[in-house]
Parts: sequence; C-alpha cells; structure tokens
Amino acid sequence: MSKNRPIILKIGGSVITDKNGELAAKTEIINRIAEEITKAKSSSLILVHGGGSFGHPNAKKWGLKEGFKEPGQMLGFAETHHVMTVLNGLLMDALVWHEIPAVSVAPSCGFLTENGRIKSSECAMVERMLKMGFTPVLYGDATFDEKLGFTVLSGDQLVTYLALKFDACKIVMGVDCDGLYDADPKIDKNAKMYQHLTLKELQTLQGKLAKPSAGDVTGGMSGKVSELLPAVEKGIPVSIVNGTKANRIYKALVGEKVEGTLIEKA
Amino acid sequence: MSKNRPIILKIGGSVITDKNGELAAKTEIINRIAEEITKAKSSSLILVHGGGSFGHPNAKKWGLKEGFKEPGQMLGFAETHHVMTVLNGLLMDALVWHEIPAVSVAPSCGFLTENGRIKSSECAMVERMLKMGFTPVLYGDATFDEKLGFTVLSGDQLVTYLALKFDACKIVMGVDCDGLYDADPKIDKNAKMYQHLTLKELQTLQGKLAKPSAGDVTGGMSGKVSELLPAVEKGIPVSIVNGTKANRIYKALVGEKVEGTLIEKA
Repeated sequence: MSKNRPIILKIGGSVITDKNGELAAKTEIINRIAEEITKAKSSSLILVHGGGSFGHPNAKKWGLKEGFKEPGQMLGFAETHHVMTVLNGLLMDALVWHEIPAVSVAPSCGFLTENGRIKSSECAMVERMLKMGFTPVLYGDATFDEKLGFTVLSGDQLVTYLALKFDACKIVMGVDCDGLYDADPKIDKNAKMYQHLTLKELQTLQGKLAKPSAGDVTGGMSGKVSELLPAVEKGIPVSIVNGTKANRIYKALVGEKVEGTLIEKA
Repeated sequence: MSKNRPIILKIGGSVITDKNGELAAKTEIINRIAEEITKAKSSSLILVHGGGSFGHPNAKKWGLKEGFKEPGQMLGFAETHHVMTVLNGLLMDALVWHEIPAVSVAPSCGFLTENGRIKSSECAMVERMLKMGFTPVLYGDATFDEKLGFTVLSGDQLVTYLALKFDACKIVMGVDCDGLYDADPKIDKNAKMYQHLTLKELQTLQGKLAKPSAGDVTGGMSGKVSELLPAVEKGIPVSIVNGTKANRIYKALVGEKVEGTLIEKA
C-alpha cells in the first residue's frame, strides 16, 4: 500500500509511434521505456500516453474534436477509441512483461468533458489502484462530452488533471526532442533549448512556441505548455525529456541530473 | 438516439476461445458473430463476453477470485486484466470492421464488488452510450473488491446486473452447446435439452445442473443459471443458444424461432 505522492509520467504519442506512419508503433522504444520504468522503482506512478499515428489520423478523419455532427461519426468514435486501446495494449504488454502491476484505465469510460474540458471523472478507481500500489495507465482518447456529444481528450489535459487531483510530486514529460525550445528544433537549426524555466518565464514564452504540426489534433508543444501551466502554478515541477533517447525518462523519474527542460514555479 | 429497451447479448468465453488452449481465440467465430450482430440491426444492444482461455487460466493461477493474499498477486491481476483486454480487442476489431459503433467498457474500472458481488458501478457512461446509439461491450474481468481487495467478476453476473439496470427486453446467451440440458451433454449422451422452462421449473432444476469444469473460475452452467434467476424473476426472457453454430445468435436477436432453450417467467 502506497501513501506517496505519485509521479505522473506522460509518454508522447510521437515517442512510441511513427507519426508519419499509420498505426505504426515503435515497439523497441515501448519496451525500453517499460524497462526504464521498472528500473526506476517509483513508489507511486501514473502513466499517460498520447495517440500518435493511432489516435490522431482517425480523430482528424472523423472530425471528432469538433463533436457530433452526423451519425456516421459514431463509427469513427468507435474506431478511434479502438485503435487507442490497441496502442495502449502494446504498452500494457511491455509493462506487464516487465513485471509492473499496471492497469489500463480508458478515459472514454471514466472522463466526461464539457466543450472539450474535463467536467467530471470517476477517479475513485484510480485512487484505489494507487493506494494498492498499482500503476494506472491512461491515454488520450475519444471521450463523451456534455455539450458536443463527444470530442477528443488529450493526454496532456489528463496529465495536469491527474497531477492536481492526486497532488503529484512531479510530472515527467517524455517527448520526441531534447526539451522545450524557443523554435521548432526539427525546422529551425538555431532553435535554442531551455534548460530551466520558471512559471513566469514559461508564461511569457507560451505565445512564441512552435505551432502543432498538421496531423496533431491536440495542440502540439504550445498546447502542451498551456495545459501544464496550472500544475506549475500549483508548485508541481515538470521535467521535459527526450523519451526516444535511452535513460532520459529513467533519470527524470529517479531525480538524477538529465538533459532536458526543468520547469519550476520559481 | 435510441430509447428502446436494450437486448443483452452474452457471448461465452467457450464460444470465442478454445478453452483447452492458452490465449487461443477463435477468430473465425468472432467474425461470424460480429456479422450476425450487424445483420440483426438491434436498435439497442449491450454485449458481454466471457474470458475463456484468456481470463480463466490466469485468474486461477493467481487465485484472484479469493482476493488479495500477497503482493505477488498484483502482477497476476494486471496480467489477467491485460489478457482480457486482448481478447476484448479481437472482438472490438471484428465489431468495428463490421461497422458496429461498439465501445469497450472495462469492468475493472467501472465496477466495484463486495465479496465478489457488484456493490456499485459507474453506469452513467454506459447509459450515455446506449442513448446515443453506441453498443457498449463489457466482459468478465479482474475487478477491485471492497472486502477482498480484488476478485473476479463474471460476465454472467454482469449480464443480469445490466439487464436489471437498463430494463432489458431480453437476454441472449450464446454458449457452446445447443441449450440447457439436464446433464452435461459433452459427457452424458442421454442428456436431454430443455426447449422451454418457466421460472419455477428453472428453480427446481438449478441444483441438478452440470458442475463447472475444472478450469472455469466463474461457475459454468449452474453458476450461469443462478445468476440469471433474478432477471427471469423480473420478467426478462432468456434465450440460451449455441453461439458456435451459424445464425443461432442472429435468430435469437431478431426473435426468430431458433433451436435452444427459452426461459420465461411463466
């Protein structure tokens, strides 16, 4: 039974899938991350992962984020949730194989949104899992919405929601670049990475950040930062590290010095 | 938006898996059943499936039904839930492929038991799905238990619970024999199948029914009948048909005359 404040680990969809492919999982990276999580032996952990080339193309094709427009989308909702459970299943497989008592929690069943923002959640079971020492695993998902009928709930929104709900001790964001940059490092070679940012600096920076790429339905890096702000405001430190490179997530989990961007309130 | 009373369709684990194998799904049968469900065009439907060679061997190996005894079982819980999501994923794949707007609902997250019996459930999302015309899909699962820590919740218990909760118009049980017999038809060649049973006859019969086979952690046919009794008492008819044979489930869904056992209150 664990009474510790949990760490929230977000694994970006672009880390565990090939965003240019279709339903293209990076199983070697998934396995390596599961290994790092086992090695880190965090006493209390919640995992959240993104959709990458599983969730995003489907959600976009069916216009799920904008809500219910016509009955044909219902199959799109079913399809999007289903492919997310497939990606989730690959991660769960690796976690269980690495002897982590991980249990998947589908946001489509437990989280109700209103105009895209979490309105209510059935977190009693997540709390029960944490108390017993299980590792709940959530993900960006197609979800039901009080106003829109349904929509897309991003993993990033879940991260801050869970961090605040369960008074997380820190957030680790595994992304597909080395940290937070002043421009998109994949396009701009002069992009400069921030090693440390305060809440104030982050707020100033927010507007300048890279816009999401075309295939991303949930906001990319600038969406990520605006989602994270309430957690940083609350004093929860955020470590943004490259999940595609070995040991970065491990080091961030155990609190070792690691290449990346550390965001602290002050 | 559907306002009709739902049909509850249970697909036995022994129908969609080879109970003698290990993680052995019968994908051809899964696909054929998905096709029959599409063809039946039920206006409101809830699906429940069993664990077969996915759920039962794991649950048994780790003694999950008896509850938490030692921390090693936690991995067993995670593993059992995970393999159930794998089996569920195969069914979901077939359903979505057949254009059924089906959404999986993991009982481990939404149902809390007390000494193995459902104590509370988060059925608001299932209700929302039904109203919108989605087909919720649940399954026998490892679940958390108020008294035992965790346990196993059978698909059969879920069937009656959901039937009563959502005032089902009928229950269709797809099993791996032609109906309900006075002895195990796989052992006793003289076993006689009942074509029609009233509540009273069913109650008299209950004690005489075949005991569950060794690998079944959730009660087999006699367990099935005792779970169904409260639904029959409430006036919900139950049709037990052979899911391994073509068109039996289809006929039971649309209300055509079909080989099998029909149970009615009077």
